[in-house]
Amino acid sequence: MNGQYTVSTYLLQRLQEIGIKHLFGVPGDYNLDFLDDVMESSIKWVGNCNELNAGYATDGYARLNGIGAAVVTYGVGGFSIINAVAGAYAEHVPMIIINGAPPARRREAGAMVHHLVSNYYLQFDIFKKITIDATLLVDPVTAPEEIDRVISNCLAHKLPGYIELPADITHAPCHAPVGSLIVQPLISNTDSLDECTKEAAGLLNKSANPLILAGVELLRFGLGKEALQLIETSEVTFATMLSSKSVVPELHPQFTGIYQGGWSKEAVRLQVENSDCLLSLGALMTDTDTGLFSINLDTRRMITVGGGQVRIGNHIYDQVHLGDFIRELTLLAEPRSYLASHPAVSFSPRQNFVAEPSCELTAPRLYECINSYLDDQMILLSEPGDSFCATPEFNIEEAENFIVQAYYCSIGFCTPAALGVALARPAKRPVVLTGDGAFQMTAQEVSTLIREHCPAVIIIINNDGYLIERRLHKDGMYNDIQNWQYSKLPDVFCNGPLVAGTKFVASIKVTTEEELELAMKVAVAEKDKLVFIEVSLQNRTCSKGLERLGNSYKMSLQKQ
Amino acid sequence: MNGQYTVSTYLLQRLQEIGIKHLFGVPGDYNLDFLDDVMESSIKWVGNCNELNAGYATDGYARLNGIGAAVVTYGVGGFSIINAVAGAYAEHVPMIIINGAPPARRREAGAMVHHLVSNYYLQFDIFKKITIDATLLVDPVTAPEEIDRVISNCLAHKLPGYIELPADITHAPCHAPVGSLIVQPLISNTDSLDECTKEAAGLLNKSANPLILAGVELLRFGLGKEALQLIETSEVTFATMLSSKSVVPELHPQFTGIYQGGWSKEAVRLQVENSDCLLSLGALMTDTDTGLFSINLDTRRMITVGGGQVRIGNHIYDQVHLGDFIRELTLLAEPRSYLASHPAVSFSPRQNFVAEPSCELTAPRLYECINSYLDDQMILLSEPGDSFCATPEFNIEEAENFIVQAYYCSIGFCTPAALGVALARPAKRPVVLTGDGAFQMTAQEVSTLIREHCPAVIIIINNDGYLIERRLHKDGMYNDIQNWQYSKLPDVFCNGPLVAGTKFVASIKVTTEEELELAMKVAVAEKDKLVFIEVSLQNRTCSKGLERLGNSYKMSLQKQ
Repeated sequence: MNGQYTVSTYLLQRLQEIGIKHLFGVPGDYNLDFLDDVMESSIKWVGNCNELNAGYATDGYARLNGIGAAVVTYGVGGFSIINAVAGAYAEHVPMIIINGAPPARRREAGAMVHHLVSNYYLQFDIFKKITIDATLLVDPVTAPEEIDRVISNCLAHKLPGYIELPADITHAPCHAPVGSLIVQPLISNTDSLDECTKEAAGLLNKSANPLILAGVELLRFGLGKEALQLIETSEVTFATMLSSKSVVPELHPQFTGIYQGGWSKEAVRLQVENSDCLLSLGALMTDTDTGLFSINLDTRRMITVGGGQVRIGNHIYDQVHLGDFIRELTLLAEPRSYLASHPAVSFSPRQNFVAEPSCELTAPRLYECINSYLDDQMILLSEPGDSFCATPEFNIEEAENFIVQAYYCSIGFCTPAALGVALARPAKRPVVLTGDGAFQMTAQEVSTLIREHCPAVIIIINNDGYLIERRLHKDGMYNDIQNWQYSKLPDVFCNGPLVAGTKFVASIKVTTEEELELAMKVAVAEKDKLVFIEVSLQNRTCSKGLERLGNSYKMSLQKQ
Repeated sequence: MNGQYTVSTYLLQRLQEIGIKHLFGVPGDYNLDFLDDVMESSIKWVGNCNELNAGYATDGYARLNGIGAAVVTYGVGGFSIINAVAGAYAEHVPMIIINGAPPARRREAGAMVHHLVSNYYLQFDIFKKITIDATLLVDPVTAPEEIDRVISNCLAHKLPGYIELPADITHAPCHAPVGSLIVQPLISNTDSLDECTKEAAGLLNKSANPLILAGVELLRFGLGKEALQLIETSEVTFATMLSSKSVVPELHPQFTGIYQGGWSKEAVRLQVENSDCLLSLGALMTDTDTGLFSINLDTRRMITVGGGQVRIGNHIYDQVHLGDFIRELTLLAEPRSYLASHPAVSFSPRQNFVAEPSCELTAPRLYECINSYLDDQMILLSEPGDSFCATPEFNIEEAENFIVQAYYCSIGFCTPAALGVALARPAKRPVVLTGDGAFQMTAQEVSTLIREHCPAVIIIINNDGYLIERRLHKDGMYNDIQNWQYSKLPDVFCNGPLVAGTKFVASIKVTTEEELELAMKVAVAEKDKLVFIEVSLQNRTCSKGLERLGNSYKMSLQKQ
């Protein structure tokens, strides 16, 4: 890079500073000048089959890397990635969307250029609604500050940001970066913080059976270690939720289990709901995390922290942030000899799977088997559907080893997200657990996993359509999908000099317990390959979790 | 259907009335009650692999059927279909999006339900921006009028409409339809209409070399026949544009060719630009239709009709609609013995293709060959990319036999759109001409074409990535994509009882002229099959059209 910065090289430098090593997306004529500079930079370009897939890959990357970014082109690209950005907003995942736009002279003339829908501010207006901050760069003089502001807000709030980059601004000269990018932290009001942590400590220390509910904001704001310290200092039992599974290690002796309201194991439910001081740290009371709102929690006995607020009983402290609260409370929390008298109802340790000879697979046995083969070097991506219902019971030790879009629940997310995960954590291995309906949504991104030599394990549960909908509702024909020969698909995606002769892919189809066991052994042994396993579950069996969900969903409808 | 209507059965009846025979989309828990009623109706449910594909299929269907509709679920579905809706808005295609939403009690409580991004009005607010009319149904008493208004506006303006259908409104009782749906026509101001047609007729009748430019609004508003009548009554020469190709038959003796500014054939360009009375009927001056704004038209000698206005020279008549204008002007136009002295520079008739033995294919020869095999029972879908540049020169007789997203240019459109085309015109056959990059975007929808037994011809031009971008810009690595074994893909999508043993698909890979010729013969002979042809153009040759575009694109950049 020579001495003179352009808007493009400025942006690239800031992206590098915040730890972006890969950029996802799809080229288009309005972003090619920017992509030329990407090619000259140390950031690797990872082209995707389409923009929605690029968005999911960016989300998966950001969940592990702390931030991700995608490049799309105007209109067709911007509107195609929206669902991934909306999902990242819902789930508090920071990603930056860089949208190449027509040059200023076209905008100023209101010219009808290709990819334009109606007016030149339409996309900017829409992205403002699904990002924490958005900018349409119109002036190279102010562009650096605009870029810094969007990135900083994105990182501080852990939400998506949007930068619209007109083609003629891309290579316009601008000033050099002034120091490193400063991310403005979220600042707590010190008086409120002081008062509320004292009140909370008083309640916690004198309580008979306190419990900490470790929620998803701990994951998103990277506060798992702080939460663990509070848990260990106070010696208070803790539970997690589906969306925050493993944010504090599940083998911890103070762990009691996953709380999901009426869907919880009974012992966990009682322990949470009967606590005389329930400290909720960053939990979001979404339908999927609360067993369709089947929780029974008494606000009067709760301390609820999250979204910049602390609520104790029925009063609220504003402008107190989760990290500050946890750190301060840890200083005030008194250790208690709690565990001796209240043993936690912790998870059963991982069991070995022993296949029954010649036994047709069922869903519960499938999940038992997969659970038994997971290890700490694998990152499980669990797709909304039956996988999503089964995996809360899996044994996952490290927070980053479990990825689920537990709230937004966009099916098709996991396959492209695995690409982002693989590139963000090359020392680990993504394991995708997805249904056939979800897989069809974004199937082509397997080709990018192959191109990038990501040794993912992709497990397609072929249960003949949208099983979760058959179980939640009636078995309508709309749940039938075209059946594919899934296990033949990876071979289609392998062509040309990049992978020829390397046998990078192993593809296996299984229908019995023994075949599954064998396939999982291959997956473990062939750790440098992409292993693709089609599991035929034409018997349409489902996990115990989905059975519970189906019953409670129908009950919740009857209450209407 | 029993005597009592529900919002759902009301909506279905209106959809039937306006000619909807197929509904595209993806099921999700918030729309299942509605889908149950769809299954009971005479409308056929056509599930898609994902929502964007459903949107493209709906667009293709609407272009031929006059209207289309898609059903998606909240959030994940609504946001995934947006790009197709934005494209339909840009291209004036009427389609109705029915979005299943959470029940009112959740909305009123602001509950965090799955698929919710931030607030319950977000999607409604966004869809308002890319539709002519949108409604969020909250009351079964007013729902019928809301539904009627949205559908009527959609049909009158030929633009998308949006209906958000909360799950608890779906089966709520409502009043029966009052008569048939009345589509409020666009009403011209009779005084303005009278004055401007008189003025226009005066100019046209006394002009020495008038020319009619038949634009895309003629297609969208179904005014091809009216335009033809004006052309034949007045005996004026006419040109079309890329987006309106064949709106008036190309074999017509008054047809001069396709006008695209500086990209036009020279004789056509001169005839249009030197006309002393250029009557532009519904032409949109988009970059792709004007050869990147390389037109040279003199406003003082033009009559421009479209968007509800007529502009003559430098004055404007408001509230005069295209159809009314054409019909009135036809009454006033004087026949002229024009053709004898001004022979039109019409298209060359279709040539037979004769393969050179053992000759490696090039792009120009590929297009020659395909053009020679098209007939009036085929509907060509031409993908933005090299296909888009080559096909203006193809011989297409009927307006509906050529489909191109000439303005919005969303790559990946054509494969799913072919599904809609096939279902809207079962007596004809869609022929998709697409590049490898575009095909990868939406490849899985081939499986729905197979499931629905649509005998499409799909021609994948495998030219090793994003060829159009290599030609418009520099040959960056970002234009490389993973090479697939495309011809093996259809086999992956054939599984299970639906198609086993029927050999519904023929898949062929070609690299020489002779192989291509043979493949096209198979395509023509096997008219009840889906014929899939992978054309290997690893030599990266391109059409003459793209060569012209590349040169003029680079020239337009130099002018900046």
